Amino acid sequence: MIVDKLYEEVKKKGPVCVGLDTSINYIPAAFKNKSFFLEEMIFNFNRKIIDATFDVAACFKLQIAYYEAMGISGLFAYKKTLEYLREKGLIAIGDIKRGDIADTAAMYAKAHLDGEFKADFVTLSPYMGMDSIEPYLPYVENNEKGLFILARTSNKGAADIQYLEHKNGDHVYEKVSEKLGNLAEKYTGKCGYSSIGAVVGCTHNENNQYLKEKLKNTFLLIPGYGAQGGDAKLVRDFLKEGNGGVVNSSRGILLAYKKVENGENKFEECARNEVLRMRDDLIS
Amino acid sequence: MIVDKLYEEVKKKGPVCVGLDTSINYIPAAFKNKSFFLEEMIFNFNRKIIDATFDVAACFKLQIAYYEAMGISGLFAYKKTLEYLREKGLIAIGDIKRGDIADTAAMYAKAHLDGEFKADFVTLSPYMGMDSIEPYLPYVENNEKGLFILARTSNKGAADIQYLEHKNGDHVYEKVSEKLGNLAEKYTGKCGYSSIGAVVGCTHNENNQYLKEKLKNTFLLIPGYGAQGGDAKLVRDFLKEGNGGVVNSSRGILLAYKKVENGENKFEECARNEVLRMRDDLIS
Repeated sequence: MIVDKLYEEVKKKGPVCVGLDTSINYIPAAFKNKSFFLEEMIFNFNRKIIDATFDVAACFKLQIAYYEAMGISGLFAYKKTLEYLREKGLIAIGDIKRGDIADTAAMYAKAHLDGEFKADFVTLSPYMGMDSIEPYLPYVENNEKGLFILARTSNKGAADIQYLEHKNGDHVYEKVSEKLGNLAEKYTGKCGYSSIGAVVGCTHNENNQYLKEKLKNTFLLIPGYGAQGGDAKLVRDFLKEGNGGVVNSSRGILLAYKKVENGENKFEECARNEVLRMRDDLIS
Repeated sequence: MIVDKLYEEVKKKGPVCVGLDTSINYIPAAFKNKSFFLEEMIFNFNRKIIDATFDVAACFKLQIAYYEAMGISGLFAYKKTLEYLREKGLIAIGDIKRGDIADTAAMYAKAHLDGEFKADFVTLSPYMGMDSIEPYLPYVENNEKGLFILARTSNKGAADIQYLEHKNGDHVYEKVSEKLGNLAEKYTGKCGYSSIGAVVGCTHNENNQYLKEKLKNTFLLIPGYGAQGGDAKLVRDFLKEGNGGVVNSSRGILLAYKKVENGENKFEECARNEVLRMRDDLIS
């Protein structure tokens, strides 16, 4: 089970997930100018960040939207970055938030768990229902793959659907979490967590206890740290003694160099320092 | 407003949307063997289908999952097909069902409404809330683009979230439709419909009246015809005198040749005949 590997990585290296949401605008000009092709610029930057942080970060998350925005070249860099992570034996999360059904979902599963864009985990959106998750399950069972499914997000608009109140008093996100928790149980690894995890934002305070109960053996991907204003105390609380999930930061790490004098020339070092600072903040 | 163009196309050509969910397995072997590269095979097949149907179909929908499953080559064919539709002045819907927030949503919007993969409309998933739609709105306002947002789908799993019952008695999909309807109003074209449309599956019977009320100036993208077992009568009912939406069929059209003797050699003709049959079925 891939979750066992992730669990071990967290135990060894801490819960930081480095978000490679790489925009061309994030790359220092001098470094950018060393490459000729867009895909090279992006890949070389990612590689530097990976090399500088892999021993202190549990995993890497690639937000595919940033790569799609750069077209074919961007997706080429996405693919190459995943290959590089694979070569180094590191864990990659494809943050794709796909959500579709039947044959279409099977195509997404093939693309992102078995095809050119294969990662170890992908994120999924559950709006179409649990049958939109099913086509991914064979890969979880047979190919050492895992999922992180959106349960509760930390944006303002989460109120629009996720926080709607069900007639029995639960919120929609609690109903979703219950279903995810039930599904997750079937894919529990040796570490006691499941390879079917949940994306849970941590900027809301209410009902965390309930959610933790529903998702008790569900490994978490927590995005609400840094740029999204997540609260380290809340996140620590969710991480249950430091190993029930990973916490993502993207711009906080990639752009750490902007807060340092002459940072452009040592962006890798700045990224590493930010990972270390974040790790201390999360497991203190 | 792009919706006005789509409205005119429906008026002129009927409500069929040709779904270019092109799998390499759908292409007749003899035709496939004429091309050397995967991207060529896919694009040439799509072009033949487009050329054979554009005068009797309102628009074309590309399901990006099929292209992602073929990696970079697939996305190259996706891009080329969109370019071809643009050259011919035809309307393209990118069926991407993305759903994310803030900068990430802005990147998806850039990719699929302005970048290499730009289409006239894209489909979106609303689970993260209405702020996940906002980054697309400038393109609707300023760039003649449109959206189709998932409201209610026709799969079994729709029960899991969309059909949850809100404490006031509404289902979640009705709450979503209400919010979509309100947003849509601001982008109403001359034809009386909005460039912000909704994806509404038509295999469920209940509460269509309510939904039609909430979505009354919302142009619909109806996928539940053909492979998904949609009922033509229900669809006709939704289409409000033949011009409140478009109805998609993918495999029904692309694979029509399989039901015809020697169909492999005239797959374009078979596709056209199926579009004509479907059009009659929908507007009779």
